[in-house]
Amino acid sequence: MRIARFNDDRIGVIVDGRVLDVTDQIAAQLAAPPYQASHSLPSLPRLLITYFAAVRPMLEQLVAELGPDAGLPLEDVRLLAPLADPTKIVAAPVNYRDHQSEMNEASHVSSLGFFLKSPSSILDPGGTVRLPYTDRRFDHEAEFALIVGRRASHVTPEEALGYVFGYTGLMDITMRGGEDRSTRKSFDTFTPLGPWIVTPDELGSPEDVDLELSVNGELRQKANTRDLIWSAARFLAYASTVTVLEPGDVVTTGTPAGVAPIEDGDRVELTVEGIGHLYVDVTAEGSVPCPTGGAGRGPVPPPAPGDSK
Amino acid sequence: MRIARFNDDRIGVIVDGRVLDVTDQIAAQLAAPPYQASHSLPSLPRLLITYFAAVRPMLEQLVAELGPDAGLPLEDVRLLAPLADPTKIVAAPVNYRDHQSEMNEASHVSSLGFFLKSPSSILDPGGTVRLPYTDRRFDHEAEFALIVGRRASHVTPEEALGYVFGYTGLMDITMRGGEDRSTRKSFDTFTPLGPWIVTPDELGSPEDVDLELSVNGELRQKANTRDLIWSAARFLAYASTVTVLEPGDVVTTGTPAGVAPIEDGDRVELTVEGIGHLYVDVTAEGSVPCPTGGAGRGPVPPPAPGDSK
Repeated sequence: MRIARFNDDRIGVIVDGRVLDVTDQIAAQLAAPPYQASHSLPSLPRLLITYFAAVRPMLEQLVAELGPDAGLPLEDVRLLAPLADPTKIVAAPVNYRDHQSEMNEASHVSSLGFFLKSPSSILDPGGTVRLPYTDRRFDHEAEFALIVGRRASHVTPEEALGYVFGYTGLMDITMRGGEDRSTRKSFDTFTPLGPWIVTPDELGSPEDVDLELSVNGELRQKANTRDLIWSAARFLAYASTVTVLEPGDVVTTGTPAGVAPIEDGDRVELTVEGIGHLYVDVTAEGSVPCPTGGAGRGPVPPPAPGDSK
Repeated sequence: MRIARFNDDRIGVIVDGRVLDVTDQIAAQLAAPPYQASHSLPSLPRLLITYFAAVRPMLEQLVAELGPDAGLPLEDVRLLAPLADPTKIVAAPVNYRDHQSEMNEASHVSSLGFFLKSPSSILDPGGTVRLPYTDRRFDHEAEFALIVGRRASHVTPEEALGYVFGYTGLMDITMRGGEDRSTRKSFDTFTPLGPWIVTPDELGSPEDVDLELSVNGELRQKANTRDLIWSAARFLAYASTVTVLEPGDVVTTGTPAGVAPIEDGDRVELTVEGIGHLYVDVTAEGSVPCPTGGAGRGPVPPPAPGDSK
């Protein structure tokens, strides 16, 4: 099943290029649980993720009963990030061998662990990445991301995929330099997410998924998740031994070689096999000189092969 | 005003060593807002923070009308972290000059930016820090933390304190080694928070606050926030230029010199002038050898002066 968020915060199921609005049916089935003073009441997408097993038969029946013209054509809706409020975004720092050599990194995810991105950095499909500074380098990073379906703590790699609600595309937009990764990757708009979530039964194995990223139609990154140093399952399992993963949390598996700068006016498009296309535009409007200085102290990867800039 | 969370997720105002339960009154005034599909409904502490200006007169009247024996003696309640669900915890990496030299760090917050800790790592006052690994070093870090009161984006240092709901104590428990800071600082239980939040009118200037941390009664860290490289206001303002800060978000200002290991059986106590005491215990029960290897590759500070271990 393909589950999207669209227009004015509606939830839809994607069928044959059309979006069936199932918001009201989900809300009716998942009547708001008793109000708890201490914890946030999750958003409807997060409730859907948490209780998907119970809701799924109803959704499948809705899809089965609707005629071919039901719903809205995809091109007539405005897609939103499939969820806007994960309690955390857990990301693999260096997890493809080719990107590891590109970054001249002796270490990778096994010694670097994970980093966190601010949930506020999530950007809708078709949105605009805003580059904050005029004098720093910003790169695209194409990634294959998992959406956690059940609370996961100290799960094993063998169990890990049982905790996955679904898969989606993610761009980990990154400033190069010496700042902590959390800073370089958490600027508002730096986490385009989508275009929707595909459930595991529909995607098949997460260990054989092609992903490609292009800038203005020029291919920049191309990889398959079989080349991950730590598989999606192993990375999720590891993260769960550090921090409890909650339903709706985003776990993103790292980026392959080909990381390269993005600039004002660029269009960046990520295609994940079995999921779909996610594009964003880039603007430098309103950017200012970096107030804390120049290019930082950290490693800057060489230009990607074929990078003409 | 001093605002605590206690017992079974109750909210209380601390007056003269007693806790006045104001949960029902707050819930009545802040009737649950209309359910929004797309966004989480914040917890009652976060709603209180968001709408504090409207609620405060009612709380002050409650306090004024109650007799000296109203409420519960502090020693009879179990304090909880003053809030459990910030959308993010933004932390300064190296922000006291003495800690900077201790860490042999050439750079500090101005070039390192901030790092993020997992909200799942928050621990209640009196809770137990669980050390995950038998073969790694874990340190205490005493910190002075801000709780954001209003959505803050691109605010200036001069404006920043106007976005603060209050102040509290925070321990940034940290594993040493080469992993990303987010990993080393996000293990479950690694963010003791509290004992409560003190509003700015009651604390006075955040730029002259003593903090002390002791382990088993032995003083380990002692500092004053005037020695911060970036003041609380400047750090909050900077963070807001990277990522939108939401009401209830935790912004913590960094730790001074004296960082040293903690071990099974330790009691760690943080005292923040004008706020109060926050203590936690430490256990190594259930810890295992680090699955990704030994001590990592990162810098390990020398033992603190007076550290007998």
